Amino acid sequence: MNSNNILTMNDLSVNDIMKILHDAMLFSNSQKDWQLSKSRLVANLFFEPSTRTHYAFLSAQHQLGCKAVNFMEETSSVKKGESLYDTVKTFEMLGYEAVVIRHPQDQYFQQLQGVHIPIINAGDGCGNHPSQCLLDLLTIYQEFQTFQNINLFIVGDIKHSRVAHSLIETLQRLGGNVRLGGPKEWVDQEELYMDIDQGVAWADAVMMLRIQRERHTTITHQKKEDYLQMYGLTQERVQKMKPHAIILHPAPVNRGVEIEDCLVEHEKSRIFKQMENGVLIRKALFKKIFQEEF
Amino acid sequence: MNSNNILTMNDLSVNDIMKILHDAMLFSNSQKDWQLSKSRLVANLFFEPSTRTHYAFLSAQHQLGCKAVNFMEETSSVKKGESLYDTVKTFEMLGYEAVVIRHPQDQYFQQLQGVHIPIINAGDGCGNHPSQCLLDLLTIYQEFQTFQNINLFIVGDIKHSRVAHSLIETLQRLGGNVRLGGPKEWVDQEELYMDIDQGVAWADAVMMLRIQRERHTTITHQKKEDYLQMYGLTQERVQKMKPHAIILHPAPVNRGVEIEDCLVEHEKSRIFKQMENGVLIRKALFKKIFQEEF
Amino acid sequence: MNSNNILTMNDLSVNDIMKILHDAMLFSNSQKDWQLSKSRLVANLFFEPSTRTHYAFLSAQHQLGCKAVNFMEETSSVKKGESLYDTVKTFEMLGYEAVVIRHPQDQYFQQLQGVHIPIINAGDGCGNHPSQCLLDLLTIYQEFQTFQNINLFIVGDIKHSRVAHSLIETLQRLGGNVRLGGPKEWVDQEELYMDIDQGVAWADAVMMLRIQRERHTTITHQKKEDYLQMYGLTQERVQKMKPHAIILHPAPVNRGVEIEDCLVEHEKSRIFKQMENGVLIRKALFKKIFQEEF
Repeated sequence: MNSNNILTMNDLSVNDIMKILHDAMLFSNSQKDWQLSKSRLVANLFFEPSTRTHYAFLSAQHQLGCKAVNFMEETSSVKKGESLYDTVKTFEMLGYEAVVIRHPQDQYFQQLQGVHIPIINAGDGCGNHPSQCLLDLLTIYQEFQTFQNINLFIVGDIKHSRVAHSLIETLQRLGGNVRLGGPKEWVDQEELYMDIDQGVAWADAVMMLRIQRERHTTITHQKKEDYLQMYGLTQERVQKMKPHAIILHPAPVNRGVEIEDCLVEHEKSRIFKQMENGVLIRKALFKKIFQEEF
Repeated sequence: MNSNNILTMNDLSVNDIMKILHDAMLFSNSQKDWQLSKSRLVANLFFEPSTRTHYAFLSAQHQLGCKAVNFMEETSSVKKGESLYDTVKTFEMLGYEAVVIRHPQDQYFQQLQGVHIPIINAGDGCGNHPSQCLLDLLTIYQEFQTFQNINLFIVGDIKHSRVAHSLIETLQRLGGNVRLGGPKEWVDQEELYMDIDQGVAWADAVMMLRIQRERHTTITHQKKEDYLQMYGLTQERVQKMKPHAIILHPAPVNRGVEIEDCLVEHEKSRIFKQMENGVLIRKALFKKIFQEEF
Repeated sequence: MNSNNILTMNDLSVNDIMKILHDAMLFSNSQKDWQLSKSRLVANLFFEPSTRTHYAFLSAQHQLGCKAVNFMEETSSVKKGESLYDTVKTFEMLGYEAVVIRHPQDQYFQQLQGVHIPIINAGDGCGNHPSQCLLDLLTIYQEFQTFQNINLFIVGDIKHSRVAHSLIETLQRLGGNVRLGGPKEWVDQEELYMDIDQGVAWADAVMMLRIQRERHTTITHQKKEDYLQMYGLTQERVQKMKPHAIILHPAPVNRGVEIEDCLVEHEKSRIFKQMENGVLIRKALFKKIFQEEF
């Protein structure tokens, strides 16, 4: 395996993380037009639907001067029963210089030991999603210029969220504090549980997670409005937030379910800013895997 | 909303239209290799199947030096119930500099007030399809160097045709005359109705519309051959056309239904020419939305 | 039709073939970074799923500096019943300078007489697949520097294999010998039949074909393991191969069915090498259809 792979947040030291964040910030300032020293051929292999992640990677690739192709399961030999290893190895042999992979299987990359080109994990099942975690961290860091003692309150389906798991661990590693809210059966670290109204008042950043209906369709919940009142972010709750505190959401947003419609573009919201940051982070990751310097 | 949006023909003045047509003609002559001053990142969002329109936009984008991505509903977060506004706004935040949208909902762009990057409407439901209208106008203008008193006879399913509605209004605005033919239940402006045999003799340009089976599958019509004999363009009817008159069709053509097979590449036919013109028009539209000059 | 079309191996003389192979070898050596004199716009029309072929063509196109688009049946006007001719002609009129086509219908290109841009056939039904044949030849040639008296043993579903048919004929034309193995009902040239154990010992190159389950689902065969033991390539059989002999497979591989899992990356295997060669061959084909020289 390539030593430049970006598979999980655990693979990245605090130094690695801070370097990526600083590079990303340079991409929004003095290095806006920076490109890779040569036009790299990269393949995006998405085995699950995605808008933000997929098109953020594409935007980053195009901005850096890469040539990008998209592999789609439905129109490929995967239909003929080809293994993930054989598929990815094929891209390597065809001259692709890096692959971005999103796949429903947890830790799918364990099968890819024999692949030599760098892999960026764009989400494995309910496991890791390092580029999303990094863009969340960037959004927090831009706001507070530190992670020390920053309070992050994550609300919603933590159990099924890739985003939440890496983020909890990483923010703690960086010196921040995390509490979790929402329906208790969706929180897998009970010791971090905090009541919604208490949490929004405590937090520097409130991250609302999407109710991922497609992952647990059997759990029938109260009606939308009930969820919003019990666990969602309402205008009333935003009143209780600290003056400097911000709202995060990995998107896509279920407007009116986990967050009141009008809050998506509220002055405290960084939801669209997160998308912008997603491109900066991916540019920094390509810079890293191809070992280039400004 | 961006003031350079191309949403409906009504938004374009006669001057705007003539400027676009002249730019398009330059793209086929002295400005064949002209490119935008920088490589723009554009996204094509097609929520309905399309060949000509989609690949004409892509060809124009590539010729102008843009970097293009294609968004497909099936492989995206729209499946997760994301709104059109959130989807388009996402592309804006990800660094895309313009979007081309085709969507089955009439006037879908009314929901996109909060989007700031330019939008080109590539078809909204049964409503508008300005780039198609402009390429039809270009094909007529190339032939007659004027729209004054040009007679256009449109035959077929006008009620369900985006193309027809804009074109009727715009050509009248430009000084031309329009009459409509085909089954009466498909014509929504009775005062313009003309019999098929009378129409082909009257016209400078005869535009045959495609029988859009997918839009009104319940209306069972006479067999193919009957339709062709009653309302279609046959070799016999072409004999009655004026010597200089031309045949148009937005395509895809149902050969042998609304038009006899051998007429598609007849010397009077401009059907494939229209496709070529479609690329020139789209190049002119990108030049316009990015406010660049030759 | 364009005289530079690459449709079947029969269209290529021995000189043509050797020129393509030599060009391909230069692309892996002194001409690694060679590009076409201008950035060509090419369209890939795949009416059947494919990984290797499709992404090898894309890789070649990108390496040569082309701009590539992918046409997918599901999101196009083919759904509206457009003919293949009208679809391909549309791409020509839209400014695309070459098309690569894979289509399930045998000899689909017979319908494309009126198309003037060059066509590369990427597979027609059970018929031809010249770029695959050429990459197999290249892999053999790299190994032995000649085709004279080279023994090729092809095992498996020859009847339904595009690859096998062209390859048998072409290798014979180039001076090599071919024998066929596997279940007798899958071999359509009985006079070439050879027993599996005899064949592997006789051959300089053993090509295992994929059991194409999607093509003949009604033929229920013995269980996987039985097939492997009776007709597949096992470690035991590899022991009987000549010291210099190599293993080929067009892929995707059914690991453990026609070939034992551990043999895919065996030192005798050229299976991944074939993929690499596939890109070199396609680069040589684009050089040929655009009539360019190093």
